[in-house]
Amino acid sequence: MKPRRDTRAVSVGGVIIGGDAPIAVQSMTSTATTDVEATLAQIHRLAEAGCEIVRVAIPRRDALESFGRVCAESPLPVVADVHFDHTIAIAAVGLGAAKLRINPGNIGDFAHVDEIIDAAGARGVPIRIGVNAGSLADDYRDLDWPLPEKLVASAVAFTSHLEQRGFEDIVVSAKASSVNDTIAAYRRLADEIPYPLHIGVTEAGILRSGTVKSSVGLGVLLSEGIGDTLRVSLTADPVEEILVGWEILAALDIRRNGPELVSCPTCGRCEIDLIPIANEIEALLRQRRTCLKVAVMGCIVNGPGEAREADIGIAAGKGVGLIFAKGEPLRKVPESEIVDALMAEIDRMESAS
Amino acid sequence: MKPRRDTRAVSVGGVIIGGDAPIAVQSMTSTATTDVEATLAQIHRLAEAGCEIVRVAIPRRDALESFGRVCAESPLPVVADVHFDHTIAIAAVGLGAAKLRINPGNIGDFAHVDEIIDAAGARGVPIRIGVNAGSLADDYRDLDWPLPEKLVASAVAFTSHLEQRGFEDIVVSAKASSVNDTIAAYRRLADEIPYPLHIGVTEAGILRSGTVKSSVGLGVLLSEGIGDTLRVSLTADPVEEILVGWEILAALDIRRNGPELVSCPTCGRCEIDLIPIANEIEALLRQRRTCLKVAVMGCIVNGPGEAREADIGIAAGKGVGLIFAKGEPLRKVPESEIVDALMAEIDRMESAS
Repeated sequence: MKPRRDTRAVSVGGVIIGGDAPIAVQSMTSTATTDVEATLAQIHRLAEAGCEIVRVAIPRRDALESFGRVCAESPLPVVADVHFDHTIAIAAVGLGAAKLRINPGNIGDFAHVDEIIDAAGARGVPIRIGVNAGSLADDYRDLDWPLPEKLVASAVAFTSHLEQRGFEDIVVSAKASSVNDTIAAYRRLADEIPYPLHIGVTEAGILRSGTVKSSVGLGVLLSEGIGDTLRVSLTADPVEEILVGWEILAALDIRRNGPELVSCPTCGRCEIDLIPIANEIEALLRQRRTCLKVAVMGCIVNGPGEAREADIGIAAGKGVGLIFAKGEPLRKVPESEIVDALMAEIDRMESAS
Repeated sequence: MKPRRDTRAVSVGGVIIGGDAPIAVQSMTSTATTDVEATLAQIHRLAEAGCEIVRVAIPRRDALESFGRVCAESPLPVVADVHFDHTIAIAAVGLGAAKLRINPGNIGDFAHVDEIIDAAGARGVPIRIGVNAGSLADDYRDLDWPLPEKLVASAVAFTSHLEQRGFEDIVVSAKASSVNDTIAAYRRLADEIPYPLHIGVTEAGILRSGTVKSSVGLGVLLSEGIGDTLRVSLTADPVEEILVGWEILAALDIRRNGPELVSCPTCGRCEIDLIPIANEIEALLRQRRTCLKVAVMGCIVNGPGEAREADIGIAAGKGVGLIFAKGEPLRKVPESEIVDALMAEIDRMESAS
């Protein structure tokens, strides 16, 4: 792991992005923004899963009023995602947007952008310059350059324009659906600008492929100290984006919001159906916010030793589970009581700590 | 991406690991090895999913006869996974094992190991030295060193012993359940030994967390040119390990075994339930072995442009889908025909190519 890159710090409705703030996990609603009730319900589910900032699209002017109601009632800072129409961005600032995301590829010419900058500046609302490989402005798209250079050139030119107008509450992203292009673009951005970076791989795909692409791309960047807030893009329930985002941070020991579960892949030595037991325990642990390391092992002989770094665990054999802590056996329980017994031990450890 | 590290090449029943051979994707059976029928059925499912080498545990001597029958009928080279008892490893060589995996932490003293080396050497069977954080030999475990150094020291000492006996058909692994420890260990191994590396994060957890940990850990290593064969460990159906393994290689554009699906995460601009459509298309594409890039986008206005790098795609709006190729619209179809129409276009492209 390289040390985290130095950046400015930007406040998004009180959640800091950049500087030495924790790397914030964010997502985007997939409901119709005009359906205020459904949108707020999704935001509450996202918040419970650990989402810290939520983005909401304002596709047309007629969604503005709903957007304002969402901002008013949201438990999380709300980012307005605006394309094409600068007047929507300006209106969103007045309706409670905690940040604007605008896309240099489609938000219009600098005269329009200046109106957005001035509105955001007057209210202290930061702007994310969100460049996307699929929607680069024509003058960049048509350049005979490698894609990462085009993404960076577009982002840097836009950033310079904001700076020249005295606006520095900037967050920058430059996403591609190619992981390698995404990594290359962010490495260059990290060298070229002092602003916090919102990292993500765009159009990453369905749950499995999107999880892998995001984990590889963001994992490489984070291990190099690059990235101040992250969004995992999945064609799936956005709650999954939050769970995967946290897993990426946890995988690199950057940040956790709950217990860590280690579990063995099972093999020809395993005498119990471990997969449903491990999944049940994982779902229960996901409700917890302590940082215990919990092991679920399929071998009563090797399990406790192999998982001796775990605070607590079970090793399951034929019809029986052995509860252990730090590699030392505590007691045996029948198979049917494995999950309850383990969770009871975890309760005890949590209340003791 | 750094260039791939130079290594020796080792043949595992005809599948080459290391040198300039493609990075092989492998898994391990989770059936009881003594259940030959179930084990072979799982191996066939793994092979269909793209598995190239399969590992099978031989937990006790009484599983040896079954192991031999599995080897005789397996469509894939079979690696014998042996712990504790060196006589099982020696017997496995005679029963058709294409490689042995032994664990320096528990296979016994060098006198026993020498018998394994001689048996393997006589048949040209390679040996994987599989060090694991949870089962380090006591003399390494008790050292007051960081874990990665202990893993590497154990692996290097064992490797040297094999070399001194004139045996060089060696593959090495050094897995931890911590991603950072795993990365650190493999970086050092890559510097210290000339043998191909089997990379993996051990006890990575259930489907979601295991996918993330493996993707982050193996992604960082592969992007640095480290890794000659990979195993994703999941507490899940081992077929998932193969699918995730291929996704990791595809994410870094190292290797593909089928079409790439890009799909948007949907947002407040999406007017159709895209998630089941994308999942259905992904399952159909998984049967294909061509390398098309296929897009599934939830916005009929922006979709074709945003996914212009895709060979073929659909952009879905209210009740309608627009089939497009390289960003250019082909035709509109009703929502109910989206999947069939897209797959028909893919058939056409595949038969034309």
